[in-house]
Amino acid sequence: MAVIKESWVVSANHPDCDFPLDNLPYGVFSHIGGNRIGIAIGDQILDLRGCAESDMLSGLPQPVIAACRTEHLNGLMSLGPASWSVLRRKVNELLSISQTAIDRIATLLIPMQQAAMQLPAQIGDYTDFYASIDHATRVGLLLRPDNPLLPNYKYVPIGYHGRASSIVISGTEITRPSGQIKSADSASPAFGPTQSLDYELEVGCFIGTGNALGQTIPIAEAEQHIFGLCLVNDWSARDMQSWEYQPLGPFLAKNFATTISPWIIPLEALAPYRTPARIRSVDDPATLPYLSSSSVDRDGIDLTLEVYLQSEQMRIHNEPPIMLSRGNLRTLYWTIAQLLTHHASNGCNLRPGDLIATGTVSGPDEGSEGCLLEMKHRKQSIRLPTGETRTFLADGDTVVFRAYSYRPGFPRIGFGECSGTVNAPVRT
Amino acid sequence: MAVIKESWVVSANHPDCDFPLDNLPYGVFSHIGGNRIGIAIGDQILDLRGCAESDMLSGLPQPVIAACRTEHLNGLMSLGPASWSVLRRKVNELLSISQTAIDRIATLLIPMQQAAMQLPAQIGDYTDFYASIDHATRVGLLLRPDNPLLPNYKYVPIGYHGRASSIVISGTEITRPSGQIKSADSASPAFGPTQSLDYELEVGCFIGTGNALGQTIPIAEAEQHIFGLCLVNDWSARDMQSWEYQPLGPFLAKNFATTISPWIIPLEALAPYRTPARIRSVDDPATLPYLSSSSVDRDGIDLTLEVYLQSEQMRIHNEPPIMLSRGNLRTLYWTIAQLLTHHASNGCNLRPGDLIATGTVSGPDEGSEGCLLEMKHRKQSIRLPTGETRTFLADGDTVVFRAYSYRPGFPRIGFGECSGTVNAPVRT
Repeated sequence: MAVIKESWVVSANHPDCDFPLDNLPYGVFSHIGGNRIGIAIGDQILDLRGCAESDMLSGLPQPVIAACRTEHLNGLMSLGPASWSVLRRKVNELLSISQTAIDRIATLLIPMQQAAMQLPAQIGDYTDFYASIDHATRVGLLLRPDNPLLPNYKYVPIGYHGRASSIVISGTEITRPSGQIKSADSASPAFGPTQSLDYELEVGCFIGTGNALGQTIPIAEAEQHIFGLCLVNDWSARDMQSWEYQPLGPFLAKNFATTISPWIIPLEALAPYRTPARIRSVDDPATLPYLSSSSVDRDGIDLTLEVYLQSEQMRIHNEPPIMLSRGNLRTLYWTIAQLLTHHASNGCNLRPGDLIATGTVSGPDEGSEGCLLEMKHRKQSIRLPTGETRTFLADGDTVVFRAYSYRPGFPRIGFGECSGTVNAPVRT
Repeated sequence: MAVIKESWVVSANHPDCDFPLDNLPYGVFSHIGGNRIGIAIGDQILDLRGCAESDMLSGLPQPVIAACRTEHLNGLMSLGPASWSVLRRKVNELLSISQTAIDRIATLLIPMQQAAMQLPAQIGDYTDFYASIDHATRVGLLLRPDNPLLPNYKYVPIGYHGRASSIVISGTEITRPSGQIKSADSASPAFGPTQSLDYELEVGCFIGTGNALGQTIPIAEAEQHIFGLCLVNDWSARDMQSWEYQPLGPFLAKNFATTISPWIIPLEALAPYRTPARIRSVDDPATLPYLSSSSVDRDGIDLTLEVYLQSEQMRIHNEPPIMLSRGNLRTLYWTIAQLLTHHASNGCNLRPGDLIATGTVSGPDEGSEGCLLEMKHRKQSIRLPTGETRTFLADGDTVVFRAYSYRPGFPRIGFGECSGTVNAPVRT
C-alpha cells in the first residue's frame, strides 16, 4: 500500500481533494501585475513566479527558474522531463508537512477563489484524434448501420487538425454557433443557429519537448514528450457537421470553441494509475511495428471521466448538476503515446505547447458515452430533475467534465473541472 | 491606359520584373542582427526597420513606425487597411523616380541575393480550402466516376485546418515523408516512403485585422481583413491520403510540409486586375445570402499561376525547368472574400498572421491542372527533356510556382517564386 503524503496546506489532505501533494499540476493564473505560472495545492495556488523571485527555488537549474518567471508554460514545457522532475521534487518539498519554512511559503499561496485561470500555454497547433473505438463504432452505426467501423480504423490512429485560436479556458461562455444546416426534408441548406449542439468529452495532452521538422518520435520515447494532461470539451454542432464534413472533415462544426481545463496533470502524478492498454481482440489486426510498444502492461491510464449537466431551470430551482455519463481513458483503442508517435511518423514537427486531444472518450457500455450524439440509440431522451428533456444542448445549459484517478490507499489525482455554459446565438 | 510609375531602383523598371514600384510586397529577411521587415523593389529589399531607425518614415502614425521595427509582420497586419495604405504611399514616395534623397535611401537597400528570406509572420492557424470546382470535380472523378462533385460543394466553401508548425519558406528542402500505405492488392497497409508525392498549387491569404471570438465578418467587409496574398505549395502524399482521410479528412498526407513564397502582395497592388468572380451556370444553386456579394464584377482577381519542374538530371544537363501547367485564380468557384466570411460565419476568430489558402487552383482545361493527381486522366505521363517521365514527384525534383498579373499598359505585379526540392526519405 502506497503512503499518501501530507501537505501543510490542510485542504490538500482531504480525501476528496483533486489536488493533493501527489498531484501538483501546472496552470497559469492572472494576478496583480499579469499572468503567472502556478501549481495547484488543495484550494490554493502556489505562485511559482513568486517562488522564483523570493529565492525559494534555489538549487534548481537556472533555465527552470527562468521558465517559472514567464507568463505561460511553453518555456518550462520545452526543457524536458528531467527539468520537470527536479521542479516537481522541489515543490513537493516546499509544500510537504515536513517543511520548516511554512510561514515564508504561505505568503506565496493564492486562494483559487481569488485567481482567474488563463490558457496555460500559447498553443501553436491543436490536433484532435478519434482514439475511442466505442465512439467511432457508435457514431459509425448512425451513419452506416451495416459497416460502422471504416477499414482503416484499426491500423491508423485517425486524427485531424483543429483550431488553435478558439481554444478557451474552462468557465468561458459558449455562444451557440450559426451555420449552414440542411434538413433531410429540404432540397437546400439554410443558414441559422445549430439545433444539435453537443459536447465531446476528451483528454488533452500538452507537448513538452518537441521534435524537429523531418524527425520522428519512436514509440519508446513518446511519453518523454508529454508535459501533462488536461480535459477538453470539443463542442460540436452536429447538423453543421453532417452537412459540411465530406470530403475534408469537420470544420465550422467544431472550430467555434474548444474548452480546456486549466490544470495540466504531470504524467508522474499518474504513475500509480498506469494500467495495460486496451486488449486487442483476436480478430484485430497486428499493430504496425512503428506503433508497437514494448511496455503494453503500463501503456494505459486508469482515469475515470465524468460528464455533468445543469440546465438554467435546474440552477433556478437549486438542483445540482446530474451525471450524464462515466467512462474511463483506459478503454481507448490507441494510447496517447501511439497518437504522438503516429503524428510525428511523417516528420511533422510537434512544438512545446501543442495540444493533442484523444477525441471523444467513450466506453463500450450504456452510460459511458462521451457525447450526446451517441446516446441517440437509447430509447428515451435524457430527463432532467425539472421535467425538462434533452437530446442536444439547450441555451443556458452548463456542461461540466471531471476526471480523477483513485483507488483505496492511493492518492486521488484529480483534474479539476472543464466547464462551459451555452449562450443564446448572436442576433444578426 | 494606366501610367506605369518608375522607380530610381533601375531593376524595378524592367518590364519582366515581378517587383515594380506598383507592387511593393512585404517580407521578412534575415540580416546582421536578426530578422527585419522589408519591401521588395526590383532585385533589392528596402529595409523597413532601417527606414524607421533613420527617420525615413516621419509623418506616419507611431504604431506603424513601431510595427516596422519588429521581427515579423503580425504587428503591421493587426493595424488595418488605413495603416497599410499610408505606409505604402510613403514607401512609394521613397522609391519613386521623383525622390530627391536617393543617396540616403540607397543605403537602406539590400540586394535580394544577399538576404535569406524568412517566414513573414507568426502563423497562428492555417486553413486550407477547396475553392476550385475544376479541381474538386477532377479529383472526384477519380474517386467517384458517377458522382464527382459532392452535394454540398456549391453551397459550402469546403475547408479544413492544416498544420501551422510545418509551414516553411520557399527554398526549404522537402523530405519525402513515410507513412501508412495500403496498396489495392494488399489486405493490410505497410509503413514506408510515399510513392505518390504531389504538389498543390495554391494562393495564400494572410489575415490582417482579425475578428473576436463570436463575431462574424460580413461579406462586404471581408477584403478589409486581407493583408495580402502569396503562393502556397500544399505538398501531398496521395497514397497516404487515400488510406487515412476517411472520415476526418487529410492529416499526415499533408502536414509534413507546406511551402509559402516569401513576399506578401497587398490587395492594393492587384487593384488593376480585379475582375468578375466566376460566373455561375444556370444549374448552379443560388448563393446563400451571407456569402452573396454586391460587387461581383470586381470580386475575382486575374492572376496567372504557373508550375515548373526541374529534375536532378535536368539540372545536371543544364536543362531549364519546364512548365507543367498554367491556370488563373479567377476560375475559382469561391472568392477569397467568401472563404473569409464563411470561416468566421460561426464566430470562429481569425487572428493577424493567420494563413488561409484557396486549395489547389485548377482551371477547366487540360494544361491548367494545379497538381499531378489531376493529370492522371491524361493519356500519357509527363515527359521531361532528359527522357525521364513523371506521374508523381521523384527525389531531386524541384517544383517552382510563379504567379503574376499583367496586361499591356499596366504594371506587372509578380509574386516571385515558391520553390522546393524533394529530398530522399530519412533512413530509419
